[in-house]
Amino acid sequence: MNFDVEVKISLKKGMLSPEASTIEKALALLDYEVKNTQTLNIIKFTIDAENKEVASEQVDQMCQKLLCNPVIHDYEITISEE
Amino acid sequence: MNFDVEVKISLKKGMLSPEASTIEKALALLDYEVKNTQTLNIIKFTIDAENKEVASEQVDQMCQKLLCNPVIHDYEITISEE
Repeated sequence: MNFDVEVKISLKKGMLSPEASTIEKALALLDYEVKNTQTLNIIKFTIDAENKEVASEQVDQMCQKLLCNPVIHDYEITISEE
Repeated sequence: MNFDVEVKISLKKGMLSPEASTIEKALALLDYEVKNTQTLNIIKFTIDAENKEVASEQVDQMCQKLLCNPVIHDYEITISEE
Protein backbone atom coordinates (compact mmCIF):
# COMPACT_ATOMS: atom_id res chain seq x y z
CA MET A 1 0.00 0.00 0.00
CA ASN A 2 1.33 3.43 -0.89
CA PHE A 3 1.33 6.28 1.58
CA ASP A 4 1.99 9.97 1.03
CA VAL A 5 4.37 11.27 3.65
CA GLU A 6 5.10 14.85 4.62
CA VAL A 7 7.88 15.64 7.08
CA LYS A 8 7.95 19.19 8.42
CA ILE A 9 11.33 20.12 9.87
CA SER A 10 11.88 23.21 11.98
CA LEU A 11 14.56 24.42 14.33
CA LYS A 12 13.92 23.84 18.01
CA LYS A 13 12.73 26.82 20.00
CA GLY A 14 15.57 29.04 21.05
CA MET A 15 17.93 27.90 18.28
CA LEU A 16 19.39 30.79 16.33
CA SER A 17 18.53 30.66 12.65
CA PRO A 18 21.16 32.38 10.47
CA GLU A 19 18.96 31.77 7.43
CA ALA A 20 16.01 33.58 8.95
CA SER A 21 18.07 36.52 10.16
CA THR A 22 19.72 36.85 6.74
CA ILE A 23 16.28 36.99 5.10
CA GLU A 24 15.17 39.62 7.60
CA LYS A 25 18.25 41.77 6.97
CA ALA A 26 17.99 41.44 3.20
CA LEU A 27 14.33 42.45 3.30
CA ALA A 28 15.23 45.42 5.49
CA LEU A 29 17.72 46.55 2.83
CA LEU A 30 14.83 46.59 0.36
CA ASP A 31 12.78 48.64 2.87
CA TYR A 32 10.46 45.86 3.94
CA GLU A 33 10.22 45.54 7.67
CA VAL A 34 9.33 42.07 8.90
CA LYS A 35 9.67 40.42 12.30
CA ASN A 36 9.79 36.94 13.86
CA THR A 37 11.15 35.33 10.71
CA GLN A 38 11.28 31.55 10.75
CA THR A 39 12.13 29.01 8.08
CA LEU A 40 10.85 25.47 7.78
CA ASN A 41 11.65 22.64 5.43
CA ILE A 42 9.14 20.17 4.13
CA ILE A 43 10.12 16.86 2.58
CA LYS A 44 7.39 14.98 0.75
CA PHE A 45 7.59 11.46 -0.64
CA THR A 46 5.69 8.26 -1.26
CA ILE A 47 6.45 5.09 0.65
CA ASP A 48 5.23 1.53 0.22
CA ALA A 49 4.31 -0.14 3.53
CA GLU A 50 1.91 -2.74 4.92
CA ASN A 51 -0.10 -0.27 6.94
CA LYS A 52 -0.03 3.23 8.37
CA GLU A 53 1.69 2.19 11.61
CA VAL A 54 4.58 0.51 9.78
CA ALA A 55 4.93 3.54 7.48
CA SER A 56 4.93 5.89 10.44
CA GLU A 57 7.57 3.82 12.27
CA GLN A 58 9.81 3.75 9.17
CA VAL A 59 9.52 7.48 8.55
CA ASP A 60 10.34 8.18 12.19
CA GLN A 61 13.53 6.11 11.82
CA MET A 62 14.43 8.02 8.63
CA CYS A 63 14.03 11.29 10.50
CA GLN A 64 16.24 10.14 13.37
CA LYS A 65 18.91 8.70 11.11
CA LEU A 66 19.05 11.05 8.15
CA LEU A 67 16.41 13.68 7.54
CA CYS A 68 16.72 15.63 10.77
CA ASN A 69 19.28 16.39 13.39
CA PRO A 70 17.35 15.53 16.57
CA VAL A 71 19.66 17.75 18.60
CA ILE A 72 18.56 20.95 16.87
CA HIS A 73 15.42 20.04 14.90
CA ASP A 74 11.81 19.35 15.71
CA TYR A 75 9.91 17.30 13.19
CA GLU A 76 6.30 16.55 12.46
CA ILE A 77 5.23 13.60 10.33
CA THR A 78 1.96 13.52 8.40
CA ILE A 79 0.97 10.33 6.64
CA SER A 80 -2.03 9.89 4.39
CA GLU A 81 -3.18 7.07 2.13
CA GLU A 82 -2.50 7.76 -1.49
CA MET B 1 -2.07 45.96 12.15
CA ASN B 2 0.11 42.88 12.35
CA PHE B 3 -0.31 39.98 9.96
CA ASP B 4 1.19 36.52 10.09
CA VAL B 5 2.58 35.59 6.71
CA GLU B 6 3.54 32.18 5.40
CA VAL B 7 5.27 31.82 2.03
CA LYS B 8 5.49 28.30 0.63
CA ILE B 9 8.15 27.96 -2.05
CA SER B 10 8.41 24.96 -4.34
CA LEU B 11 10.18 24.19 -7.56
CA LYS B 12 8.08 24.50 -10.71
CA LYS B 13 6.79 21.27 -12.19
CA GLY B 14 9.39 19.58 -14.33
CA MET B 15 12.35 21.25 -12.63
CA LEU B 16 14.98 18.77 -11.50
CA SER B 17 15.61 18.87 -7.77
CA PRO B 18 19.12 17.75 -6.83
CA GLU B 19 18.20 18.05 -3.16
CA ALA B 20 15.28 15.65 -3.50
CA SER B 21 17.22 13.10 -5.50
CA THR B 22 20.09 13.23 -3.00
CA ILE B 23 17.64 12.51 -0.17
CA GLU B 24 16.16 9.63 -2.15
CA LYS B 25 19.59 8.12 -2.83
CA ALA B 26 20.74 8.54 0.76
CA LEU B 27 17.57 6.86 2.05
CA ALA B 28 18.12 4.02 -0.44
CA LEU B 29 21.60 3.48 1.02
CA LEU B 30 19.93 2.99 4.41
CA ASP B 31 17.50 0.50 2.79
CA TYR B 32 14.47 2.77 2.79
CA GLU B 33 12.77 2.89 -0.55
CA VAL B 34 10.84 6.07 -1.21
CA LYS B 35 9.54 7.66 -4.42
CA ASN B 36 8.40 11.02 -5.77
CA THR B 37 10.53 12.97 -3.33
CA GLN B 38 9.93 16.71 -3.27
CA THR B 39 11.24 19.46 -1.04
CA LEU B 40 9.53 22.71 -0.14
CA ASN B 41 10.63 25.73 1.84
CA ILE B 42 8.39 27.73 4.08
CA ILE B 43 9.25 31.22 5.26
CA LYS B 44 7.12 32.62 8.07
CA PHE B 45 7.18 36.15 9.40
CA THR B 46 5.09 38.97 10.82
CA ILE B 47 4.46 42.15 8.91
CA ASP B 48 2.85 45.41 9.89
CA ALA B 49 0.44 46.77 7.26
CA GLU B 50 -2.75 48.83 6.98
CA ASN B 51 -4.87 45.95 5.82
CA LYS B 52 -4.70 42.45 4.34
CA GLU B 53 -4.58 43.68 0.73
CA VAL B 54 -1.59 45.93 1.37
CA ALA B 55 0.18 43.13 3.25
CA SER B 56 -0.51 40.71 0.42
CA GLU B 57 0.79 43.16 -2.19
CA GLN B 58 3.99 43.77 -0.20
CA VAL B 59 4.67 40.08 0.35
CA ASP B 60 4.14 39.41 -3.34
CA GLN B 61 6.78 42.05 -4.15
CA MET B 62 9.18 40.48 -1.63
CA CYS B 63 8.71 37.12 -3.32
CA GLN B 64 9.39 38.55 -6.77
CA LYS B 65 12.41 40.55 -5.65
CA LEU B 66 14.10 38.38 -3.07
CA LEU B 67 12.45 35.33 -1.59
CA CYS B 68 11.85 33.36 -4.78
CA ASN B 69 13.31 33.01 -8.21
CA PRO B 70 10.18 33.37 -10.37
CA VAL B 71 11.91 31.53 -13.21
CA ILE B 72 12.16 28.26 -11.30
CA HIS B 73 9.91 28.63 -8.26
CA ASP B 74 6.21 28.60 -7.59
CA TYR B 75 5.07 30.35 -4.45
CA GLU B 76 1.95 30.43 -2.38
CA ILE B 77 1.23 33.20 0.12
CA THR B 78 -1.00 32.74 3.15
CA ILE B 79 -1.82 35.76 5.28
CA SER B 80 -3.74 35.72 8.53
CA GLU B 81 -4.44 38.33 11.16
CA GLU B 82 -2.31 37.91 14.22
